[in-house]
Amino acid sequence: MRATLMYGAGDVRVEQVPDSVIALPTDALVRITASCICGTDLWRYGSMKPEEGPARMGHEFIGVVEDTGSQVARLKRGDLVVAPFAIADNTCQFCREGLHTSCTHPQAGFWGGPSSEGGQAEAIRVPLADGNLVRLPVEADSALLPSLLTLSDVFGTGHHAAVAGGVNPSTRVTVIGDGAVGLLAVLAARRLGAEQIILMGRHRARTGLGREFGATDVVAARGGEGIEAVRELTGGHGTHVVVEAVGTRPAYRQALGVVRSGGVISRVGVPQYEDAPIGFGSLFRRSIRLAGGPAPVRAYIEELMPDVLDGTVEPGKVFDAATGLDGVPSGYQDMADRRSLKVLIKP
Amino acid sequence: MRATLMYGAGDVRVEQVPDSVIALPTDALVRITASCICGTDLWRYGSMKPEEGPARMGHEFIGVVEDTGSQVARLKRGDLVVAPFAIADNTCQFCREGLHTSCTHPQAGFWGGPSSEGGQAEAIRVPLADGNLVRLPVEADSALLPSLLTLSDVFGTGHHAAVAGGVNPSTRVTVIGDGAVGLLAVLAARRLGAEQIILMGRHRARTGLGREFGATDVVAARGGEGIEAVRELTGGHGTHVVVEAVGTRPAYRQALGVVRSGGVISRVGVPQYEDAPIGFGSLFRRSIRLAGGPAPVRAYIEELMPDVLDGTVEPGKVFDAATGLDGVPSGYQDMADRRSLKVLIKP
Repeated sequence: MRATLMYGAGDVRVEQVPDSVIALPTDALVRITASCICGTDLWRYGSMKPEEGPARMGHEFIGVVEDTGSQVARLKRGDLVVAPFAIADNTCQFCREGLHTSCTHPQAGFWGGPSSEGGQAEAIRVPLADGNLVRLPVEADSALLPSLLTLSDVFGTGHHAAVAGGVNPSTRVTVIGDGAVGLLAVLAARRLGAEQIILMGRHRARTGLGREFGATDVVAARGGEGIEAVRELTGGHGTHVVVEAVGTRPAYRQALGVVRSGGVISRVGVPQYEDAPIGFGSLFRRSIRLAGGPAPVRAYIEELMPDVLDGTVEPGKVFDAATGLDGVPSGYQDMADRRSLKVLIKP
Repeated sequence: MRATLMYGAGDVRVEQVPDSVIALPTDALVRITASCICGTDLWRYGSMKPEEGPARMGHEFIGVVEDTGSQVARLKRGDLVVAPFAIADNTCQFCREGLHTSCTHPQAGFWGGPSSEGGQAEAIRVPLADGNLVRLPVEADSALLPSLLTLSDVFGTGHHAAVAGGVNPSTRVTVIGDGAVGLLAVLAARRLGAEQIILMGRHRARTGLGREFGATDVVAARGGEGIEAVRELTGGHGTHVVVEAVGTRPAYRQALGVVRSGGVISRVGVPQYEDAPIGFGSLFRRSIRLAGGPAPVRAYIEELMPDVLDGTVEPGKVFDAATGLDGVPSGYQDMADRRSLKVLIKP
């Protein structure tokens, strides 16, 4: 079968690999029908050292169950399923609290790790299948597939950003970042009833989609100028919630500038920094809280899916390009160059 | 009248100053009957530069209203009152949300600022008196005065630490720091029903009081050893809430080590650092949240006072020394040397 491997920065290849097989009785074998490239993949695409590779890529996929291990009880051959981007057993104490990204099972972790496969491929072995895979009540050729695919990561992550920030009908929200997660944080904030949603981004096609998703305001300026603009839109105080969906230190500093005293910076962009200001002059004096982390999207699939199925939300609009496996390497480059927002893969 | 002034590190003097008077129609003049020295004062005691002084000291006091400005409606001469450590109008949008430390009134701020007086004195001008002063339903010589005095800061701050951390009957809590705020965070966590309260501190008299206040465990070790000890006490996971009541970077790092994945570090020790680790390896990967800030103690006085009045809690036990104004300079030194936990002042 064919799968996507990253050999180093800028070096993505689609190659023949051994066919995926059931290895453990809790595994399922899934034939992938839809997958995609994630903004997170781009961090490695920009900086991965050859000695860290080759790595199997892809952590978002929908597919058809082809085989199941002897202990898999909830799935059967032929089921159309979606998988969350973090592998979890869905039964440990952290999973029961809704924090699947801290699952304590020894097989828990992220796709593409040393012992797991990737979703940008023809097929995949899914560990802890009962815990991870969620059946989709649609046909394999449903037009809803792109939107359902976002339940594996970007819609769930945008929703998590809003939930971790405490978005409700009386909150004002700023979303920093016009990537797929930022745009879907806008959608999630709108879905949760946020009074005002300010999207900070400068890519006009993307901020246009942000408006369609529910942004009430768009601020293209960055840094001090961007902060001023948000403050002007909010009576001088900034917003109760700031979703930081980029992951850089400048984005964090921007979040500090636009958050209201007593508010929350909810981070879902994976931080590309370790130390940052959190002392008296940044967080403490103004009682600003920090929240977020890798989204436990498995916890949200059942809640979000009905709105996708009935068309209330269309998160799949973040896909502005589609390709077969052959086009995956150029899909990475297109996303890195911001020519594509998010590339759908049909293996 | 006499008041306490800090001239620089290690240099505290009690001097004659002009008598306090009503300056604005919203002021009250209060004759102070009980005040104290705060752990926060010790930061300046350790590092204040002479050019920053002299500064009027003291932000915790109880006293008797001696005079009121023409616009003061809720207080009258003779009322016994307690003041919160932050000056606020108690009516702006932030105050109404319970965040008095972000009050937008031009006169809001902290005691001891350029235009405000201090509580370690015979009398004090209290701005925005209706908003700040809360009447105490006891006689001026009540034995409850030390406990009622803690409503001005340390009990309210300990309570805020617990509330900001989300303490409830199903949470386990670690409190880092055996100063008055740490000990009263223990008391507050117990009052809110925390299942387990681990106090990290090495001063035996203080940790003894911590046990009396409700600590279920005491860990004297610090650093890696202390972290190991807390993890052993919590099934390997750490606690849902960590109250960081010290304010140093090592205390923050210790908090990172003992907090459970998905948990909260609630900071009430004023950070003596600006940058600290908050990236993937510290907060993000484990979805750890940061909360806290200068406690809006005004918001809590009405809630906490009944438990003090009926003796359910005795936060005044943190006072292990008492002095008149003359003894204030040596009181600072005793607290800096950890000979005294908290010094009560009877002007």
